[in-house]
Amino acid sequence: MESWVDGQPADVLSLKDRGLAYGDGLFETIAVRSGKPVLPERHLQRLALGCQRLMLQVDMGALEAELRAYAQGLGGGVLKLIVTRGDALRGYGADPSAPSRRILQGSPPAAYPPMHAEQGVRLFPCATRLSEQPLLAGLKHLNRLEQVMARAEWRDAEHAEGLMLDTSGRVIEGVFSNLFLVREGELVTADLSRCGVAGVMRAELLYQAESQGIVTHITDIRLEQLHLADEVFVCNSVYGVWPVRACGSARWSTGPLTRKLQTLARTLLDV
Amino acid sequence: MESWVDGQPADVLSLKDRGLAYGDGLFETIAVRSGKPVLPERHLQRLALGCQRLMLQVDMGALEAELRAYAQGLGGGVLKLIVTRGDALRGYGADPSAPSRRILQGSPPAAYPPMHAEQGVRLFPCATRLSEQPLLAGLKHLNRLEQVMARAEWRDAEHAEGLMLDTSGRVIEGVFSNLFLVREGELVTADLSRCGVAGVMRAELLYQAESQGIVTHITDIRLEQLHLADEVFVCNSVYGVWPVRACGSARWSTGPLTRKLQTLARTLLDV
Repeated sequence: MESWVDGQPADVLSLKDRGLAYGDGLFETIAVRSGKPVLPERHLQRLALGCQRLMLQVDMGALEAELRAYAQGLGGGVLKLIVTRGDALRGYGADPSAPSRRILQGSPPAAYPPMHAEQGVRLFPCATRLSEQPLLAGLKHLNRLEQVMARAEWRDAEHAEGLMLDTSGRVIEGVFSNLFLVREGELVTADLSRCGVAGVMRAELLYQAESQGIVTHITDIRLEQLHLADEVFVCNSVYGVWPVRACGSARWSTGPLTRKLQTLARTLLDV
Repeated sequence: MESWVDGQPADVLSLKDRGLAYGDGLFETIAVRSGKPVLPERHLQRLALGCQRLMLQVDMGALEAELRAYAQGLGGGVLKLIVTRGDALRGYGADPSAPSRRILQGSPPAAYPPMHAEQGVRLFPCATRLSEQPLLAGLKHLNRLEQVMARAEWRDAEHAEGLMLDTSGRVIEGVFSNLFLVREGELVTADLSRCGVAGVMRAELLYQAESQGIVTHITDIRLEQLHLADEVFVCNSVYGVWPVRACGSARWSTGPLTRKLQTLARTLLDV
């Protein structure tokens, strides 16, 4: 399906766009099923928070209408939504009242091997660390060179994802996923106040787990804690939940809480 | 003058470009005088280093030829050169052999008030800190949200530039400049191995100072050291050298070494 820029079909962008010049914008990657975006409120909520932090003026009404109309046209697959600060003046300074540019791109459903979800994945232990920047932490902004560098560390098909630590050595997330561990029946995921992307599926799983009386912890995670976990899994808005069976020399077996949350994600994503 | 993409006139870019998606690329801002780029070897050298660090395949021969031809067409002004990893496949992974995209954009000469160079400037003490990422430090890459956030901290014309510290509190640079201080006749500038952009004018001034027997130091700088400096100045490839007369409550007067290096930059930039 052809892309849209500000609600109009387009396949090109102004060379002056600040998204290109500075990565000055945000994005969302949204699963689409039966012509509808999955978890649209959570995606729009995160985007609105990002716009607030970056002081981006975005017409959220127009954006939501476009998102729903585009999803209907796409039917099924993955929708990428990008918001940029529009065209650049000279230099880093921006007109604070300038309206943002809205870009929608569609692609077919992701084709991950079913084995990833069934038997679990192996994580590549990335040497690329996440830098600590509280001002941008949690946001899905367009400055993603650390992820590009981390993803380039492995090319084999043995590793479905990579594990990223921050520059202080804390366990944070995957390259394109959030990470959870289970310890004595309780769910633990990294505090993302210094770095990392606060994923929509992560938020939904935390919410659902809490609703079912499961104790959850959002906290700093040391590598030793990860190694001692009973279960480990990664998640995102497109594939749902993948159990993690190995990372470097560490091994984990897939446990009941991972399967429970995986089923929940599957219901949402209809996969 | 119209922009060029891969040597062809163009004013738009593919929506799939990884420069937009992830800030996956590099740029150079180059002064052009009498149809020639200023310090082209230094700009191309920094770009080549960046390409190596980011594993970007770029045709440096084609790039240099385009740079010189575009500068000739522009005559005078500022040339912005962007290199991106080209169009995206799905996700962060890239084809390691894919050729990069080359973008050239021209604009008229920068119109800064002559007072900045003559009487010196006041720096805004930015609250936005630079995060520490040795893998990307020194490069002029397209992930520039920290600069966008810092530049948005002030709007008044009293402040011509901002002062940026890193997350550990070290003095690093301006938002769009490098920073030097002079202490007892010696030249000091920040070590940029954890963050910051290793500017072309910074490199040229260090080289010229050393050639003239001036002792130079590339080292960590504490805020107290900045306050105790005899002279402070900022520099970049477009405006040359601006003396710094104030930052917050700190005051400096413009000294002889600043004026000497300013004259040198003026000769290069013909301003």
